[in-house]
Amino acid sequence: MAYIELPDELPGIRGPMAFRPETAKPLNDLAEVLLRSDNTLSRGDRELIATYVSYLNDCFFCQNAHGGLAQHYMQCDMNYIDGIKKDYLASDLSDKLKALLAIAASVQKGGKHVTSEQVEKARQLGATDREIHDTVLIAASFCMFNRYVDGLNTWAPRDRNFYIERAPRRAVEGYANYDPHS
Amino acid sequence: MAYIELPDELPGIRGPMAFRPETAKPLNDLAEVLLRSDNTLSRGDRELIATYVSYLNDCFFCQNAHGGLAQHYMQCDMNYIDGIKKDYLASDLSDKLKALLAIAASVQKGGKHVTSEQVEKARQLGATDREIHDTVLIAASFCMFNRYVDGLNTWAPRDRNFYIERAPRRAVEGYANYDPHS
Repeated sequence: MAYIELPDELPGIRGPMAFRPETAKPLNDLAEVLLRSDNTLSRGDRELIATYVSYLNDCFFCQNAHGGLAQHYMQCDMNYIDGIKKDYLASDLSDKLKALLAIAASVQKGGKHVTSEQVEKARQLGATDREIHDTVLIAASFCMFNRYVDGLNTWAPRDRNFYIERAPRRAVEGYANYDPHS
Repeated sequence: MAYIELPDELPGIRGPMAFRPETAKPLNDLAEVLLRSDNTLSRGDRELIATYVSYLNDCFFCQNAHGGLAQHYMQCDMNYIDGIKKDYLASDLSDKLKALLAIAASVQKGGKHVTSEQVEKARQLGATDREIHDTVLIAASFCMFNRYVDGLNTWAPRDRNFYIERAPRRAVEGYANYDPHS
């Protein structure tokens, strides 16, 4: 049970977002720019970075909600996403995306864990300054979202099909005008 | 030197905010609601929570920028803020604020570190659900801001007077329409 009284027993971040719409607005605006707006990183790549950081933070709701979106955009199944979470270096992702995931993993530990060597490697593999910036901020923002969801002890559906089934609609509707009740 | 090319050698978060105004907007909107909008927690209390989490994350820029605002609102000096950072339990802060700082410290470690006992204690000392919510989200958001600032290896003025001198103007101007160049 959540630590505070949240409306309508909504799962995950939707409870606190319905509880406090004043903070939900900028949180959703941030997610829209980072994960969905035009970008040289695909939506799938960005949702995958969010998923991986949420996995490292052991946040069940976020890693499945965003993992569902990643598999939707990447047209793969959840086994593929699970394989990336466990060992992305062994996956068939591009070397550039692997270098960005390495940066994201360092951000998850703490900002100072990112090294100039990691950034240089990503750049040599074709990452632009904006892609490096966005990777750092996506990873940092999920260190916030994950703590928000788990710090209030929200509940999450354990059936992973819940997230897979919701993903196509979430992909269309986006984050900017997200209604936590829907 | 920052890991990406940031405009005008701006310090701390101001560099990446000038680099990427599309993400700066929701980040500043979030800070405005959490730290400055009407709230039963004073602006000083909220800036102190932000400062303490930034201290735990060892983010020099954030702990001094927000520490400067905390000392401005609380009408104290930086020695007092430094004492709180080192041992808030030994300070003369209210028991309720100490209970909220304990929650914030758990959020800094990870969302699952927050316990029902911590929340119950804060509630018994008079904290409302919204105050508990805001404490969790302030702490979570500074786990983002700190990682954003340090993950890109931004520079920060080492002279702490820089932050103290800027605080009164930052307090007046707020975050919502923040111009990173000013």
